[in-house]
Amino acid sequence: MSLAWHRKDFLSLRELSAEELNQVLATARVFKEILGRPIKKVPSLQGRTVVNLFVEPSTRTRISFELAAVRLSADVVSLDKDSSSLRKGETLSDTARNLEALQAGVIVIRHRSAGAAHFLAGRLKASVVNAGDGAHEHPTQGLLDAFTIQERLGKLAGVRVLIVGDIIHSRVARSNLWALTKLGARVTLVGPPTLLPREFAELGVKVSYDLDGQLEEADVINLLRIQHERMVQARLPSVGEYAGLFGLNLERFQRCKPGVLLMHPGPVHRGVEIASELADGTNSVILEQVTNGLAVRMAVLYLVSGGRGLGES
Amino acid sequence: MSLAWHRKDFLSLRELSAEELNQVLATARVFKEILGRPIKKVPSLQGRTVVNLFVEPSTRTRISFELAAVRLSADVVSLDKDSSSLRKGETLSDTARNLEALQAGVIVIRHRSAGAAHFLAGRLKASVVNAGDGAHEHPTQGLLDAFTIQERLGKLAGVRVLIVGDIIHSRVARSNLWALTKLGARVTLVGPPTLLPREFAELGVKVSYDLDGQLEEADVINLLRIQHERMVQARLPSVGEYAGLFGLNLERFQRCKPGVLLMHPGPVHRGVEIASELADGTNSVILEQVTNGLAVRMAVLYLVSGGRGLGES
Amino acid sequence: MSLAWHRKDFLSLRELSAEELNQVLATARVFKEILGRPIKKVPSLQGRTVVNLFVEPSTRTRISFELAAVRLSADVVSLDKDSSSLRKGETLSDTARNLEALQAGVIVIRHRSAGAAHFLAGRLKASVVNAGDGAHEHPTQGLLDAFTIQERLGKLAGVRVLIVGDIIHSRVARSNLWALTKLGARVTLVGPPTLLPREFAELGVKVSYDLDGQLEEADVINLLRIQHERMVQARLPSVGEYAGLFGLNLERFQRCKPGVLLMHPGPVHRGVEIASELADGTNSVILEQVTNGLAVRMAVLYLVSGGRGLGES
Repeated sequence: MSLAWHRKDFLSLRELSAEELNQVLATARVFKEILGRPIKKVPSLQGRTVVNLFVEPSTRTRISFELAAVRLSADVVSLDKDSSSLRKGETLSDTARNLEALQAGVIVIRHRSAGAAHFLAGRLKASVVNAGDGAHEHPTQGLLDAFTIQERLGKLAGVRVLIVGDIIHSRVARSNLWALTKLGARVTLVGPPTLLPREFAELGVKVSYDLDGQLEEADVINLLRIQHERMVQARLPSVGEYAGLFGLNLERFQRCKPGVLLMHPGPVHRGVEIASELADGTNSVILEQVTNGLAVRMAVLYLVSGGRGLGES
Repeated sequence: MSLAWHRKDFLSLRELSAEELNQVLATARVFKEILGRPIKKVPSLQGRTVVNLFVEPSTRTRISFELAAVRLSADVVSLDKDSSSLRKGETLSDTARNLEALQAGVIVIRHRSAGAAHFLAGRLKASVVNAGDGAHEHPTQGLLDAFTIQERLGKLAGVRVLIVGDIIHSRVARSNLWALTKLGARVTLVGPPTLLPREFAELGVKVSYDLDGQLEEADVINLLRIQHERMVQARLPSVGEYAGLFGLNLERFQRCKPGVLLMHPGPVHRGVEIASELADGTNSVILEQVTNGLAVRMAVLYLVSGGRGLGES
Repeated sequence: MSLAWHRKDFLSLRELSAEELNQVLATARVFKEILGRPIKKVPSLQGRTVVNLFVEPSTRTRISFELAAVRLSADVVSLDKDSSSLRKGETLSDTARNLEALQAGVIVIRHRSAGAAHFLAGRLKASVVNAGDGAHEHPTQGLLDAFTIQERLGKLAGVRVLIVGDIIHSRVARSNLWALTKLGARVTLVGPPTLLPREFAELGVKVSYDLDGQLEEADVINLLRIQHERMVQARLPSVGEYAGLFGLNLERFQRCKPGVLLMHPGPVHRGVEIASELADGTNSVILEQVTNGLAVRMAVLYLVSGGRGLGES
């Protein structure tokens, strides 16, 4: 089945239908199969240009998008936070117009402000892909997490997923939440009250302040990264106390289902969000998430560039 | 008509004949047509290597050259100001010899010292393209400005062009001046006496300290960027006063010809060199300049790499 | 003759047999011939990905590996010291696993810690190439030096090579020493006692503290770079005194064989390790070393990616 994709941009999972989410997942499955070959490259975007505009730095996501683009045979040009025009105080709007004038086919943007990707998308004929905007969304991360669960468990419908940690500041949590609930998973958000406002319950998920009470029924535990540097200080007594209450240690793991999937968007703070042995253990799919991120990003770049959906969704 | 190009390097517009300038412009017109296609790529420089050596940072110009190179199918390697060998105090001469030894086909250099590109060119078998050297020249900018005027007005001969601002420190002004006067345009330089020495009149252009007196006859107004940071302090009372005397505001615009072209090399200080409404208005060709810069840089890289002139000059 | 290469990684010259060293040199000779053509590109690694992970910065080596990779038609992605995940304190082990998950074919690593490349290689299915690890080894530099001597003098067996300078901190010295002694050259290490412990004699080389006494018999003098910044302070009275005792000046050069080869890994401190006239003179092969580095790195990337040895070894 080959479906047309109708969106110029890829901005948030909140706005996508379950059918659209399934279309991206099915296309990503085809690209993942290609990544398993010795020659991991297809000519789909030959002659197209992908511009990576990473105003907020992120090596992992930038490299993942760069690799996704070159494996589609696109040309890639990367601008980072140190790019001088941006430092000179040019507005994002003017940067956008200039990128349009340079006739980039796809612009991948990471920005510290929520809504930055939408702002660009509304002003450009080029396709815009959101690689993380403030605490708003990180849609390719949300999709790669859904992809990983579906691949491992064979389904998303009815799967019980815990998302644990600093929910309020997490674009990963938000994108996961949209993808998973639309695709039928049952999501519980877990964290300290200072990082998990009760209003999240209005989004169709459960909210819990007690990790221990949730462990036994979980099929998947997705442990978010604690951002020492910035946010936690004001809202957490200490990293150690956080680890004690919400870190997945061996004792807690004993009480989980045998086949529970352990996920983390990386980079992992070993001993904080998750015990080192668990991060490297057989229940961990943390590195599969990285590989699946490539496949999902190839799918997204391919679809917004005019490719038709691939695979059976 | 297909003419051979005889220069190894592309260093300054001052040294080019009108015939050579027209040859680059005609070649750029062919490449601009290619940029309008869905697949904006030609195999002209397949297997060739372009090294971008940006000792002075410039995201815009670097990205423009990178895109120009990849659209010609060249391989691109970029060194920037932070490159460690340069920081270690290696001389430009030794850097040059090393680049030669790495057998780069074309070296694109931006450097804070006037003459840096000529210095390299005289020492290398590789082709050298000047991407801006101190206050000396920025030849691809001069050519893209000429290209833009010619494309919009259908000619350069007899066209009246104002170049407004910090003339003394501007390589853009110098390269514009050489290209435009050789191709028959009538150039008037406008700025405060501290930024526009009277000796410029010896170069075959008019010099004026009164923008208001020049507006009515202008076909083109090219507003240079004011470099707050460095130069203006010593020579200007304030940015506000500069804007009052030499900024293009709505009131001044009313007195211009209806079809006047408004140009700026970017990034624009909205409300300083030009009012925001005018920068975004129908007379503005600021973003066309960015697109045309790609076409001109493709033409330059192509010609110095041994391509024959394309198109009707 | 076409021999299979059996190593996944390229980590140190100490562990290679003379036959393996000759296989790389022979393959590099084929690639050097290709570098002399107008189109310096071969399709050997089309569709493969090379990740440059330069945790310790080095423009020259990074650019050389980048160019080697693109000339083999590989796709290249570069991470440098500023890459944010590494700054966030992620362990090298976790970085390694993530790179594995991104399915890079070859990882080129430069790192300040001796053993970093071996550490990665033992944990990854991907091929790892050591581009310099602390004071341990810089194997492609050692091989390009051997290549240069063999090409110029027609042989390595019996050739007398002086390696002069800060031996104790030099990975270049170590990699040279392994390659040259295995291939039959006669190596003498020369330097001040503080930078040249007597134990080096146990490695099958001569140790001397008197450059003047070694000049007359030398076929090759390889002058190592003095690292002003860090190491010398504690162990040398002054750079001037070093230059007086161990710098190759014109007077010393008069006493060398007429055809002596003068080598330096770059960047040169003119007037410290070698007089400027000699660095630029006819005995200097410093720039040939740079070119040969490309050929050697192409050979290494090619072989670890599964290519069979090329040329007559």
